[in-house]
Amino acid sequence: MDELPSTPKIAILGAGLIGAAWAALFVHHGAEVRVWDPVDGALSGLSARMAVPRAQLAEVAPEAGPRGSVILCDTLEQAVAGADLIQENAPESLSLKHALYAQVEALMADDAVLASSTSALTWSDLSPGLRDPARLITAHPFNPPHLVPLVEIYGIDPARLARAEALYRRADRVPVRLKKDATGHIANRLASALWREAVFMVQDGIADVEAIDAALVNGPGLRWSVLGAHMAYHLGGGAGGMAGYLAHLGPSQERRWAALGTPTLSAAVQAELVAGVEREAVGRSIAALETARDNALIAALRARKEAPHV
Amino acid sequence: MDELPSTPKIAILGAGLIGAAWAALFVHHGAEVRVWDPVDGALSGLSARMAVPRAQLAEVAPEAGPRGSVILCDTLEQAVAGADLIQENAPESLSLKHALYAQVEALMADDAVLASSTSALTWSDLSPGLRDPARLITAHPFNPPHLVPLVEIYGIDPARLARAEALYRRADRVPVRLKKDATGHIANRLASALWREAVFMVQDGIADVEAIDAALVNGPGLRWSVLGAHMAYHLGGGAGGMAGYLAHLGPSQERRWAALGTPTLSAAVQAELVAGVEREAVGRSIAALETARDNALIAALRARKEAPHV
Repeated sequence: MDELPSTPKIAILGAGLIGAAWAALFVHHGAEVRVWDPVDGALSGLSARMAVPRAQLAEVAPEAGPRGSVILCDTLEQAVAGADLIQENAPESLSLKHALYAQVEALMADDAVLASSTSALTWSDLSPGLRDPARLITAHPFNPPHLVPLVEIYGIDPARLARAEALYRRADRVPVRLKKDATGHIANRLASALWREAVFMVQDGIADVEAIDAALVNGPGLRWSVLGAHMAYHLGGGAGGMAGYLAHLGPSQERRWAALGTPTLSAAVQAELVAGVEREAVGRSIAALETARDNALIAALRARKEAPHV
Repeated sequence: MDELPSTPKIAILGAGLIGAAWAALFVHHGAEVRVWDPVDGALSGLSARMAVPRAQLAEVAPEAGPRGSVILCDTLEQAVAGADLIQENAPESLSLKHALYAQVEALMADDAVLASSTSALTWSDLSPGLRDPARLITAHPFNPPHLVPLVEIYGIDPARLARAEALYRRADRVPVRLKKDATGHIANRLASALWREAVFMVQDGIADVEAIDAALVNGPGLRWSVLGAHMAYHLGGGAGGMAGYLAHLGPSQERRWAALGTPTLSAAVQAELVAGVEREAVGRSIAALETARDNALIAALRARKEAPHV
């Protein structure tokens, strides 16, 4: 793998919440960040949108930064020319992204990486937008991107994948690679699978919305913050580990899978979900809940330095 | 609700790992704990099995204890007579538990609670073992019970449910109530649902075992340690909250549910799961992994005091 530049040049396309979080993250970790957004007024609000993420990063990783710089760019060319990594955060419209990629491809360095933050689209959807698809990777962050370390990666060029991963690691992210392009990447597939059963339990009357959330946060969620799901079954197998678990409890796990539910988001179920989260919020606004979430994430991330996850 | 006794009397039936964890927890929080186990030699090893949990509790909640006492009981009567709560941790055999309950019921105080730690069985399976089923609750801890706060509760007597919950809260647990008896309670249903998709991704070649675990621990797992799954979608809906999320993304969520997989634990999949956790363990023994897990859980629990979960 090529050596990383001492001051990586990162282009951020799209200056909304995700773009602002990426910008704050890369600046904190010493990159030269160039931000472009074609929407009128988007750039002028960027510094305000970066303020909270920058302050939070100073709490999470005070030793790291802030060391970099942000340049607001009037043109796409200004942002993209010479960039090592171009992180695209455009709206989730295929035609819009394809049109943008054609412009970017004409301006980017030959060996640069165009990375899409897309959540809903896949690499196979996006890559027809480029003459050379090897330049494209999907690099999906998990919200909020400057706090949650995961970046899910898929692409076809080993050299660019390795370079992008090194740039994300340099910014204290944990890149995780897919072997095959998949809708929902890894994390949203897991989240969807879990939420399907959570909604089923609400629909079936097994437990209330807020009870299910409390069970998750005080039970498996807490454990999954330190131990993966596969690894949990490895430890659940006693001295025999995963092999012992599968030999003894594999059949009962398959029966349990067969007994899980598939809910319908009927009007009644939707009403119960809405009422449930409102009971759980106890009057707190979305903004207040986000602040509480971020503070708890910051404390959890600091705890990882004391005792890292398994 | 009746007032709690200043020194609750807790009977622990079964002195294996789960019983030892319960005993350590209740002693740390000032209860008089009486332990009984009919297996030869089980009681003599209890103090050794309690040593690590007791030391860990001193780290998690140094202000709380240790204040209680442990009494090793030669007879079931000694353990159960006068107990406020009888926590049963017998092997997962229905006939064995039914036989035990008949003995316990003859010895326990009229208003005491018999709580089963059962994971695999349900209240409906167990309650035919008693003359008065109102005395029984299921109270399932999540492993390791002295660290992970969740206790999942089901029963039919509101007064006993409330009293049991108060006793668990007093021991720094988070009791969560089911409205309806269900196999797998809440947490193991969620864990099963998530693992089904995790195994499917391995089977389908989307990602390796260790990549999926890394994605979980650095993404949704971390977030679910501070925010429930329902609440995460409430925040994912922007200013519109859960209602906005359902209106805009409900249909795509239902399509995503339909696209999730159901794997088969074939020999090839089992071999890949075993190989995957072994790569992930990088030579660490089960005991070493458990120690790393516990240390990370302790750090995460201490972080919650600084900034509690949402």
